[in-house]
Amino acid sequence: MTNETDAAGAAPAEESPAPTPGLSRRGLLGLAAGVGAAGLALGAGAGATAGVAVGRSRAAHAAASVYPFFGAHQAGITTPVQDHLHFASFDMGARATREDLIELLQDWSYAAARMSQGLDVSATGAVGGSPEAPPDDTGEALGLAANGLTITIGFGPTLFQTEDGVDRYGIAAQRPPQLEKLPPFLGDDLDPLGSGGDLFVQACADDPQVAVHAVRNLSRIAFGRATLRWSQLGFGKTSKTTADQATPRNLFGFKDGTANILADDTAALDEHVWVGAGDEPAWMAGGSYLVARKIAMHIEVWDRVRLAEQERIIGRDKGQGAPLSGGVETTAPDFAASSAAAGPAATGATAIDAHSHVRLAHPDLNDGVRILRRGYNYVDGNTGLGRLDAGLFFLSYQRSPAQFVGLQKALSTDLMNEYLTHIGSGLWAVPPGAAAGSYVGAGLFV
Amino acid sequence: MTNETDAAGAAPAEESPAPTPGLSRRGLLGLAAGVGAAGLALGAGAGATAGVAVGRSRAAHAAASVYPFFGAHQAGITTPVQDHLHFASFDMGARATREDLIELLQDWSYAAARMSQGLDVSATGAVGGSPEAPPDDTGEALGLAANGLTITIGFGPTLFQTEDGVDRYGIAAQRPPQLEKLPPFLGDDLDPLGSGGDLFVQACADDPQVAVHAVRNLSRIAFGRATLRWSQLGFGKTSKTTADQATPRNLFGFKDGTANILADDTAALDEHVWVGAGDEPAWMAGGSYLVARKIAMHIEVWDRVRLAEQERIIGRDKGQGAPLSGGVETTAPDFAASSAAAGPAATGATAIDAHSHVRLAHPDLNDGVRILRRGYNYVDGNTGLGRLDAGLFFLSYQRSPAQFVGLQKALSTDLMNEYLTHIGSGLWAVPPGAAAGSYVGAGLFV
Repeated sequence: MTNETDAAGAAPAEESPAPTPGLSRRGLLGLAAGVGAAGLALGAGAGATAGVAVGRSRAAHAAASVYPFFGAHQAGITTPVQDHLHFASFDMGARATREDLIELLQDWSYAAARMSQGLDVSATGAVGGSPEAPPDDTGEALGLAANGLTITIGFGPTLFQTEDGVDRYGIAAQRPPQLEKLPPFLGDDLDPLGSGGDLFVQACADDPQVAVHAVRNLSRIAFGRATLRWSQLGFGKTSKTTADQATPRNLFGFKDGTANILADDTAALDEHVWVGAGDEPAWMAGGSYLVARKIAMHIEVWDRVRLAEQERIIGRDKGQGAPLSGGVETTAPDFAASSAAAGPAATGATAIDAHSHVRLAHPDLNDGVRILRRGYNYVDGNTGLGRLDAGLFFLSYQRSPAQFVGLQKALSTDLMNEYLTHIGSGLWAVPPGAAAGSYVGAGLFV
Repeated sequence: MTNETDAAGAAPAEESPAPTPGLSRRGLLGLAAGVGAAGLALGAGAGATAGVAVGRSRAAHAAASVYPFFGAHQAGITTPVQDHLHFASFDMGARATREDLIELLQDWSYAAARMSQGLDVSATGAVGGSPEAPPDDTGEALGLAANGLTITIGFGPTLFQTEDGVDRYGIAAQRPPQLEKLPPFLGDDLDPLGSGGDLFVQACADDPQVAVHAVRNLSRIAFGRATLRWSQLGFGKTSKTTADQATPRNLFGFKDGTANILADDTAALDEHVWVGAGDEPAWMAGGSYLVARKIAMHIEVWDRVRLAEQERIIGRDKGQGAPLSGGVETTAPDFAASSAAAGPAATGATAIDAHSHVRLAHPDLNDGVRILRRGYNYVDGNTGLGRLDAGLFFLSYQRSPAQFVGLQKALSTDLMNEYLTHIGSGLWAVPPGAAAGSYVGAGLFV
């Protein structure tokens, strides 16, 4: 990437295909809110004094990954899973209109496309605007490269609801039939304030400051149109989407996501992840559905369980992640193999317990259903009892929410449930990727 | 590092100098608590079935940094600042004795020395023990290298207090005279449950899962002797300790820690950071004092401040971090320079405002006092008002708490205070490093 603003302060060369010439006037007013007429001053920012201007790209790390924002599918689904997550759920403002929603999606797409390239949210950015106006960009990612940042955006069931018979955004008829609040599951103890939301933004990057910067700036751009409802930071990805990524471990100490759908398995993605051209509604073709579940893990209790019992519950050995029926991590589990053949760690009639996690979640026992997992570990400090407030922020992408619902019901007798509580939940429709010059969700507003 | 346990399950070769032959019986019971007699089974764990054993080091990343735990000073003070922090404050249990405290420090030192080398907390670790016992190590760092992990340990004022006239740990007379709760400062709104603590553990690493693993396992080992009081995760280090580290940015978007004391500046460290051989008490020689301050930053308000005003408040330009008196980031600020010479971003009679942060915190205005900063940015989700719950987890090491107290008082007229609230606070004595074969704090118990 090259420097964005030259030393003489000339107008920057636009490197990113963008859906609009820049942020909407509302978007700019969001950035400038509270300073009176400063929003107007910003309009002239590109040519203003740039003595202190510095492109984020100037100090960029050459090796950092950059993923395109525009494309057939949104980034951040099959993208090699990055190290850090900042996930945010938003609600539209009580007076927001259809035009506000469209403009917000345009502004978000514009800013997201820029940030995905390691640029500030606008051409004037953190330091290139007028000194008499608040900067467009908050600046904490100045000097940091893109770090593989992806920003993924989608729509919750509530966005399509009519209120008192009024179809606020004129999209009620476009609601995907399957996009409705997830049913209750055994073990749910959901916090309503940490569940749901009209819109989600998933920011993933290999530097947490880059992910936080993205959510912070998109939240700021949303000012007056949508408000942050809840958010979650995550680290230590718990799944992989490419074969060369090592299988990471969850906070139970076990490898997680061994059998995930990989980014190069086009057939499996088409069957299990991407909404097909023949699926309803048509505007979702090439999109997906995202399920988020915040799952508190009772790690102090788990840590006191015998190793053999931990392995029985998971159905895999803790060291290598091999199924208890034998072999190595990538060996297919043999649910019929007897315990006798499987070494001292196994118990019960079969080497793999009938209620182990690996068996109940396996496609063979779920009509071949698979999902693409993309979750992260989280630690939110500690409880008043001196226990870490920790767990799994589960994220999965699937062609239909029914895939997750079926699997989660199959897990109702999972031995692992004793050590888990689901405390947050959400379901969103994830539209296909935006074409260069368009915006995420454009197909919903034709 | 070599593989720790060979395939035949032979007893591992000890690679780490350790203060004791292993965890104390109490430490092992802490790990096994709740499973009856399993603690005894663990004693024989080293020779038990190791069919599933895997050393953490086997998959270790060759390039990862390893810092020694033992030495004249504790690691994690002048160590090049790692990317991630998990900080934890502990309180001793109501019935804990002097022997418990000593044993805990021995166990912590043993486990910390091992983890700093990328090893599990004990020789049997996560998967090398008996399958009929809970593993010694929780396992989520299996396969991860040391990632530069440092573990730093220290003592709060409350550890030295007598209760009802009883000197519980027999150390009241050894209390450093300056080790008392910090005085109240302007802008304090401290949460008592997120402040103070008998003991602290600072775990820093370049992988957050490694830092979390360290705190989790030390917390587990403390079972029955000390309990987690509060904890904090941090990312995006806000200072550097070596000249080749780029100056990072805080969540106000400004470079932070430009003038920090660097690890190779031995004279400055001896003057400002390390307790001297002639200082009182003698057991602290080679140690330091740690101040922690959780500082909430009102970032949404800050983001609406004009760029020129932001720069006036900080006293530096936002792009390069140069003082407003001119030059580049490393140029010494000239507090007498007039505004006229400094370009359009400056206001007031002098280029650097008299109440700017850089001026009030500068050694020239504080009798030459300096501190070693080692803080991190934090984001703890969001508030109910849809604002990010974010700020700076400030950490500073100094030869005497008086250095911090003086500086913080000098900042009482800091223009930046309008955008900050101090919500957590702590002060701890940080003993010198342990000699190989000894433990942190041994000098306190002679």
